[in-house]
Amino acid sequence: MSEPPNQVISPSKAAARIRVAAADAFASSGYGGTTTREIAARLDMSPAAMYPHYRSKEELLFAISYEGHTATLDVVTRADLPDELPSTRLRALIGAFAVWQATHHTQARVVQYELNALTTEHYREVVRLRREITRIVRAVVDAGAASGEFTVPDSEGVTLALMSLCVDICRWFPAGAYTEPKVVADLYAGLAMRMVGAG
Amino acid sequence: MSEPPNQVISPSKAAARIRVAAADAFASSGYGGTTTREIAARLDMSPAAMYPHYRSKEELLFAISYEGHTATLDVVTRADLPDELPSTRLRALIGAFAVWQATHHTQARVVQYELNALTTEHYREVVRLRREITRIVRAVVDAGAASGEFTVPDSEGVTLALMSLCVDICRWFPAGAYTEPKVVADLYAGLAMRMVGAG
Repeated sequence: MSEPPNQVISPSKAAARIRVAAADAFASSGYGGTTTREIAARLDMSPAAMYPHYRSKEELLFAISYEGHTATLDVVTRADLPDELPSTRLRALIGAFAVWQATHHTQARVVQYELNALTTEHYREVVRLRREITRIVRAVVDAGAASGEFTVPDSEGVTLALMSLCVDICRWFPAGAYTEPKVVADLYAGLAMRMVGAG
Repeated sequence: MSEPPNQVISPSKAAARIRVAAADAFASSGYGGTTTREIAARLDMSPAAMYPHYRSKEELLFAISYEGHTATLDVVTRADLPDELPSTRLRALIGAFAVWQATHHTQARVVQYELNALTTEHYREVVRLRREITRIVRAVVDAGAASGEFTVPDSEGVTLALMSLCVDICRWFPAGAYTEPKVVADLYAGLAMRMVGAG
């Protein structure tokens, strides 16, 4: 596992402000339609002042993607309760994942839709984090299938579907009656139970 | 309902070849990372020869998006069987939707991830098609809820989730054991039954 570059985990307030401004710019104009100059202008900074923090637009995209995936992984990891029943674990996991995706839908959407713009090395780093998130969901599905609490046609397929539900929230949220992350979480935790054939 | 511009529905082979080349270019380099010159070069055409068909990169993106959404709407409309039981209808609908999304995952992904790059007018046109697709799925969920065949917590929410399953296929397909569109369709038709509380 390679170490993330320093600027990704930079705790500096300036770097954090630049990441937020870049995510907003990418969300409104697309990654390809945004220049580093425009990102700097959003912060009344010169491009030269931004350079020590992020040397390129791609570095910024990677920082945003890395931060988003790390935060998701952290949320999912903390939500998991390995000593509880698989159904309790899955409810908690899907609920927390859904709340995160709905709350951070703008950032999640950039992270999601611009993955192809990353360098191969950075893409691999992000895919590694995605696999860890999937692995946590899969472990709970497997545990429920093993204990008999879940009846799944296929653990791999159900996990793909559960991941889809949560990942795709950034595309549509908010919509209709679903304007509160907690309401999406309750709906999806319940649907997850049905999908695994529990309760 | 406004009429689509001529070039979108152009039956000319040249226009169709340009749309395919553009979708491939957008898929590999992103919309922002592609020039019309590069698209023309993929076809050994000059940009001037492409101009009578599509006058801008955005027009091409709209044509691809319009074509993709029209095809999806067509597939979903043809799959629906209004005289059958809601469970039969939903299985057919989700299965056909999933097969289309998996088979055309490259095009679907471009359509999905670059929506923000469309002009406001073109975006609205695509959103109108999306709403028609959602409306068809929702009508089946409502029919099953009304007949008592389905037990849904909320028709709107379950429809959002069913749409997510199908739309997000373009992100991950193919993966693991899911390399055939028909296998995804069978999995998702079965999960859809569970999500609506049928069978």
